[in-house]
Amino acid sequence: MARDLYNSVKDMPIVSPHGHCDPRWFAENERFPNPAELFVIPDHYVFRMLVSQGVALSDLGVPRSDGGATESDPRTIWRRFAENYHLFRGTPSSTWLDHSFEHVFGLDEVLSAVNADALYDAIDAKLGQDDFRPRALFERFGIEVLATTEGALDDLGWHKMIRESGWGGRVVTTYRPDTVVDPEFEGFADNVEAFGVLTGENTATWDGYLNAHRIRRLFFKTYGATASDHGHATARTENLSKAEASALFQKALKSDCTPEEADAFRGQMLTEMAKMSLDDKLTLQIHAGSRRNHSAGVFAMHGRDKGFDIPGRTDYVGALKPLLDAVGLEPDLKVILFTLDETTYGRELAPLAGAYPCLRLGPPWWFFDSYEGIRKFREATTETCGFYNTAGFNDDTRAFCSIPARHDVARRSDCAYLAGLVGTGRLRESEAYEVAADLTYNLAKEAYGL
Amino acid sequence: MARDLYNSVKDMPIVSPHGHCDPRWFAENERFPNPAELFVIPDHYVFRMLVSQGVALSDLGVPRSDGGATESDPRTIWRRFAENYHLFRGTPSSTWLDHSFEHVFGLDEVLSAVNADALYDAIDAKLGQDDFRPRALFERFGIEVLATTEGALDDLGWHKMIRESGWGGRVVTTYRPDTVVDPEFEGFADNVEAFGVLTGENTATWDGYLNAHRIRRLFFKTYGATASDHGHATARTENLSKAEASALFQKALKSDCTPEEADAFRGQMLTEMAKMSLDDKLTLQIHAGSRRNHSAGVFAMHGRDKGFDIPGRTDYVGALKPLLDAVGLEPDLKVILFTLDETTYGRELAPLAGAYPCLRLGPPWWFFDSYEGIRKFREATTETCGFYNTAGFNDDTRAFCSIPARHDVARRSDCAYLAGLVGTGRLRESEAYEVAADLTYNLAKEAYGL
Amino acid sequence: MARDLYNSVKDMPIVSPHGHCDPRWFAENERFPNPAELFVIPDHYVFRMLVSQGVALSDLGVPRSDGGATESDPRTIWRRFAENYHLFRGTPSSTWLDHSFEHVFGLDEVLSAVNADALYDAIDAKLGQDDFRPRALFERFGIEVLATTEGALDDLGWHKMIRESGWGGRVVTTYRPDTVVDPEFEGFADNVEAFGVLTGENTATWDGYLNAHRIRRLFFKTYGATASDHGHATARTENLSKAEASALFQKALKSDCTPEEADAFRGQMLTEMAKMSLDDKLTLQIHAGSRRNHSAGVFAMHGRDKGFDIPGRTDYVGALKPLLDAVGLEPDLKVILFTLDETTYGRELAPLAGAYPCLRLGPPWWFFDSYEGIRKFREATTETCGFYNTAGFNDDTRAFCSIPARHDVARRSDCAYLAGLVGTGRLRESEAYEVAADLTYNLAKEAYGL
Repeated sequence: MARDLYNSVKDMPIVSPHGHCDPRWFAENERFPNPAELFVIPDHYVFRMLVSQGVALSDLGVPRSDGGATESDPRTIWRRFAENYHLFRGTPSSTWLDHSFEHVFGLDEVLSAVNADALYDAIDAKLGQDDFRPRALFERFGIEVLATTEGALDDLGWHKMIRESGWGGRVVTTYRPDTVVDPEFEGFADNVEAFGVLTGENTATWDGYLNAHRIRRLFFKTYGATASDHGHATARTENLSKAEASALFQKALKSDCTPEEADAFRGQMLTEMAKMSLDDKLTLQIHAGSRRNHSAGVFAMHGRDKGFDIPGRTDYVGALKPLLDAVGLEPDLKVILFTLDETTYGRELAPLAGAYPCLRLGPPWWFFDSYEGIRKFREATTETCGFYNTAGFNDDTRAFCSIPARHDVARRSDCAYLAGLVGTGRLRESEAYEVAADLTYNLAKEAYGL
Repeated sequence: MARDLYNSVKDMPIVSPHGHCDPRWFAENERFPNPAELFVIPDHYVFRMLVSQGVALSDLGVPRSDGGATESDPRTIWRRFAENYHLFRGTPSSTWLDHSFEHVFGLDEVLSAVNADALYDAIDAKLGQDDFRPRALFERFGIEVLATTEGALDDLGWHKMIRESGWGGRVVTTYRPDTVVDPEFEGFADNVEAFGVLTGENTATWDGYLNAHRIRRLFFKTYGATASDHGHATARTENLSKAEASALFQKALKSDCTPEEADAFRGQMLTEMAKMSLDDKLTLQIHAGSRRNHSAGVFAMHGRDKGFDIPGRTDYVGALKPLLDAVGLEPDLKVILFTLDETTYGRELAPLAGAYPCLRLGPPWWFFDSYEGIRKFREATTETCGFYNTAGFNDDTRAFCSIPARHDVARRSDCAYLAGLVGTGRLRESEAYEVAADLTYNLAKEAYGL
Repeated sequence: MARDLYNSVKDMPIVSPHGHCDPRWFAENERFPNPAELFVIPDHYVFRMLVSQGVALSDLGVPRSDGGATESDPRTIWRRFAENYHLFRGTPSSTWLDHSFEHVFGLDEVLSAVNADALYDAIDAKLGQDDFRPRALFERFGIEVLATTEGALDDLGWHKMIRESGWGGRVVTTYRPDTVVDPEFEGFADNVEAFGVLTGENTATWDGYLNAHRIRRLFFKTYGATASDHGHATARTENLSKAEASALFQKALKSDCTPEEADAFRGQMLTEMAKMSLDDKLTLQIHAGSRRNHSAGVFAMHGRDKGFDIPGRTDYVGALKPLLDAVGLEPDLKVILFTLDETTYGRELAPLAGAYPCLRLGPPWWFFDSYEGIRKFREATTETCGFYNTAGFNDDTRAFCSIPARHDVARRSDCAYLAGLVGTGRLRESEAYEVAADLTYNLAKEAYGL
């Protein structure tokens, strides 16, 4: 039954409404440089696991903030990866990597110290072929649409180049304004000033600043954006009066915010973004709950996004109330919630999504984008909010070759779950086929307006 | 094995020690008015799901606080329900509804826009027959005893009418004193005054107020009550000195309590109720953890209990300590704990119930009264507190026709769990049959003194 | 598949790197006194369950703090246990007890009121035989190494006696300094003074106090210690300046600490212990999250460790940051984390252990040392930190006869989990056999340096 359901969806096109692929790949369509830069150096899932067992980030070629030397030979990096490949047993990384080796590169041996060089050479040779360039892989992977994520100040030049190239692949952007909505982001005031220059608005004023967002959102829409994305440590929202919000903004510009005030400002901006969505229909994504840069030492040596972001407890019930009281019953709004705290699925997120018309639950994210993670998500949410308050699958990755693998895991895990429902008499067989297609394809398109 | 276990308990009588059926049904024994009023309008599980996908509460006939117009045609409401019936796929509501349609009304088609009218007519016709009146269904469902829940000021007139009717069905009441123990309840001071009038006690004094409770509890016992029930946002208890409690009570009467003081007062009243239980032997039920009326907009338009009650994190370890230090080792006391925070099952509730003699764990409640919810409850609690510190099943419903379905789901889920234990060598087959009967029938009777 | 995997590891030697067996047993090698003192009186899992259903601790022979009378007839105690044996259905205690009765004593009847005396007599007779003395059982159980746990002030006399006896069994100690690191421990200042006498250091000074720890740790190492162990209510750590730490220590000596300061001092001592581990290589174990002595009444009547220790929510992400910022990237440090809050497995512990090189996850502890507990641990952690950031199994018991049963449950549960991975294509069969042996044997030896 699980297999039949899976067979019915396994060849459906990939809809990837949220992720971090580099649009430059598709703009320039250059070959990927080498196996280490494709699979090891940029993948925080991979290097964090090696670090956890004593390999230094520098020995994996991860750049240092001070520009100091790091390992620069891709083959040496690859060998370090290969000789520790057993660390990934039982993890989704091993599923994604094995799937990529086999289905993208036609290699079905298990990577190890023994065959490290042979696999390196085989992959490297393929990468030199035209049918392994980014656009060719995009087409081979059956991607119908792929969303990238760009900052509010990005000129979307790569997206422009893609569009002007005449290539038929659909790559869209997403509006991610961290640098201009987080008072604690490096260079916030300067970023806001640049934001004004870019939009012709006086961003020293609250009204001008909000207008600048409206203008940028429309600009992002011209490059296909159907969503904005916001990643805060908490899901806090606020619905302050205009006077309060404006005063907070002035403090933020002067770097005068306490941590509490900075947090309130970020919370206010979620509500502002939701209000803008009433006009421009961008879907609002909230990725909450990561305690970023947990290790002071790693942050000092290598900077952000180096595998030391650790989830923490996250409250959604109190945190989202201001936003939901402001706009939560609006019929056309779409807000997609993500979490790194699985305890919130059944206790908070499914009850919220099963009541508020604007809410949809995003798929399991980051550490929970996995076979068990997806199963636990369905087991914890379906009974309270059903399938139709969820938003389909996201791969949310910068590891391009893992995209088919990730969607494949989701399809398998969902189909196994559906088969279990049928087997225990909780879903009819005919319904299961419909739901499988919805989870694979339709819900993502609907939630993101794609 | 699961099937054999299930077959051994599936026809046992239904013991329903906690729920919200209307005693009036059994007092008057009138026909249920129509399918929409039976299945849609009063069922918050049903209308919240429709709302979550954009249907307005008013369009489902849910009354407005301002008396404004709402949809009044039951057939129109039913059609709206029917055309959205796919939303319930995978939810317990669909199991309960399908089970009711099939086992109560003999209809085994899946409800849809296409057959909405036909099913409406078929159900409506049955409702007009004598054997579909409340007492007949009660008997057909094999209900041995059904507890309803009434407020402290209720005159129990419907219960009196049932008793005087000579009908043999056992319907008992439960003492639920929210309106006179929660300083934040609308009209608290007036309610306490009426409480005094009703009992002949001077409820302007702490002693008189406590006496009034004692008198009402005994009155409820004359209509079969074996339990009281308390639903607070937290599980907080207090064990204040008489002087402190009395001072807090005086503040409450003057509407002078801070939110913190109101919470302390509710907590003190749980301990007072537990102390009264030492004398009158009523089982104390604590239903903690719902953040009521989360949406300001829905509350303003439609009032309480409209599907916008959202669970939150709940602490039991610190919260219950005052009550447990006061009376937790008393051999005859029974306190049944319910939760909407599944993380507390293994971490807090099972360890507490596996130590304190007074504690029993109530079955999964509300969003967790489901196939997975019951499985997860057993998996999280059995290893720490066993089966004999749990209290059997509650349907806790106002949806009368769903009672057999709910008990059936619980029996299936428990038997599947027991079969798993036998299959992995953790329970002997002969023991499994005994435990199945205990979970289905004996434990509820024992925990509630029925 | 699960069975084949299990068969491949079931006869491997037992490595028990953390537990609470009494070294005196192996030093004196006297017979165990009787079945009640072996199975009931010292086992908090057993007596708490009996208490939870109304049996008094005194009626089970559990000593009273005031020296008052308690049941002293072991056969009477055994009968009370036997007639309530059904309470343990579905719990690990029943698995461990049944396994001990069958595999250690050759008795395969289910204990009950009916056969209580017969089983008592049979066990008692065996206990009188030489091959049921502690050393003989140790050898029969296939224990390769067993770690006990002793306080910082212990003279390790029993360990000395074991060593001098010439017996070949490997029993090692563990450094557990609660009495001299917890300002709230009874007699803290006196303990610290005695600590100075024992080590020849001036423990009235911060430097002398730290030196005393260093000296004792080395002394413990001479009796085989490879680890220290720390059990705090929280996982809080601190990294204070020397001046701050020293000032806090002086306050602690004068019993002048607020609860907050006492907690900070315990947190500072975890970091101090980690720093000492950099030199002496002891593995640091942190057992966090138990709210001890929850019942004031039980604590007053019977004292510590009487089954009324209840877990609570525990934060690791913020709590461990000071220690991890201080020494978390040191390549040779090993810190093993234990939890009583299962929600932290996937959200906090696996992400931390999957990044920091010093961290390993200890196996499920206390209430979670069970078939489901182990399965849930693997399901929640493997996908994020793999197998090689976990530390193998601990029995952590003072119930000597249960040791083979506990390791057997772990092996079965792990093998069932691995078989599930193979069955769903997430692990290769050949890898599963290697991992099974690692989980059973190699990881414990590596994590504890045994």
